[in-house]
Amino acid sequence: MERTTKRKLYDLAGADENFRFSPYCWRIKLALAHKNLPYETVPWRFTDKEAVAFADSIKVPVLVDGNNTIVDSQAIADYLESEYTNEASLFGDPPSRALTRFIKAWAEDALHPAIGRVVMPELVAKLAPQDQAYFRESREAMVKTSFATLSAAREENVAALKRVLNPVRTTLHVQHFLAGSAPSYADHILYGALRWARMASTPRLLDDEPEILAWMDAVLATYGLEDGIQSA
Amino acid sequence: MERTTKRKLYDLAGADENFRFSPYCWRIKLALAHKNLPYETVPWRFTDKEAVAFADSIKVPVLVDGNNTIVDSQAIADYLESEYTNEASLFGDPPSRALTRFIKAWAEDALHPAIGRVVMPELVAKLAPQDQAYFRESREAMVKTSFATLSAAREENVAALKRVLNPVRTTLHVQHFLAGSAPSYADHILYGALRWARMASTPRLLDDEPEILAWMDAVLATYGLEDGIQSA
Repeated sequence: MERTTKRKLYDLAGADENFRFSPYCWRIKLALAHKNLPYETVPWRFTDKEAVAFADSIKVPVLVDGNNTIVDSQAIADYLESEYTNEASLFGDPPSRALTRFIKAWAEDALHPAIGRVVMPELVAKLAPQDQAYFRESREAMVKTSFATLSAAREENVAALKRVLNPVRTTLHVQHFLAGSAPSYADHILYGALRWARMASTPRLLDDEPEILAWMDAVLATYGLEDGIQSA
Repeated sequence: MERTTKRKLYDLAGADENFRFSPYCWRIKLALAHKNLPYETVPWRFTDKEAVAFADSIKVPVLVDGNNTIVDSQAIADYLESEYTNEASLFGDPPSRALTRFIKAWAEDALHPAIGRVVMPELVAKLAPQDQAYFRESREAMVKTSFATLSAAREENVAALKRVLNPVRTTLHVQHFLAGSAPSYADHILYGALRWARMASTPRLLDDEPEILAWMDAVLATYGLEDGIQSA
């Protein structure tokens, strides 16, 4: 059996293959950067189910690392932490790792839905043509309302999102990162959500949030990355 | 100057002096238990401003620890952590301590307001007579609506609170405490909020949340406390 030495991340893309907006994939791109691990990305679209069938998956991120194939962002982060113990920890000590699970739960239960209600109707036009109907149908079913209704309520949905972000603002008033003086996976989770929010929105969300934008830049700068990158 | 050896916590009370419902005071009662520090409580009412004037405060918790007087729950927790280093840490390592600040921000920016909208109209009748007008006026101004309006919307306010609790439920599915295998100050913060929610509500909030109630009991059991206690 041939062993591939390349590390590959299947990464969600839009019509433009450089438009990489998935919050879950962003977590992993930052986690890989945190662990100093080079990788290539493989652009993937929602309807490319066959392309990740080898991993028994129907979605991304999927990481192929030598002979290991890992599916799901949390499983990938856990894998990177246990596989690359000589690199900086993604989570910190056990209590820190446990508290990071709360950040994940808050991001997925509160923040992602609030972002989605604003950006999904705007995002659909940026997707590959073959993905657009799938995305619209699956997401309208998920939020139990139409994109047209969401669009009509954009202003109040933005206000709701800004309320959800209150604890982020409060926290960044007292420290540089969620994890303190340097970013950890908790920051990667939040970055992924906000990167998605900004990339998918027109007009761009958070342009009026200088403190949050400065934090986003600081997360990237920690890893020598720039805001302009579409995939690292 | 005489040095007092008694440790005293000024603790918010209702009409019944054993009705101790303040979420901020509960944080500190659990933090003191976590640090194995015995203490006495001094019941205090909202309008007892003179009773804490010695501490340059107009509210509780106020901790008097020997010659030290500390005001504000966060300052008290920070004091206990730096003063009693031989006891178990309240926060864990620096990233853990930083993530705990996010839990605090989330509790105060999202959870407390959601609880308050349900329980404040019910709580007012349980307060000391001299506190009731103060409480009603100050809290109605805070939430910019009347208690009557909040009461009329109790059902939808309970539903909103339950949505805010989604990340708690998600987290407790994968681990025993917010901080993992044992409670830390992050758990104390959440406990304080939910203890207030239960004590102040009629009918009692969270009776239909067995997983959350089991976690509350487990937090108390860690310190050898029982649910029946009004003050430790």
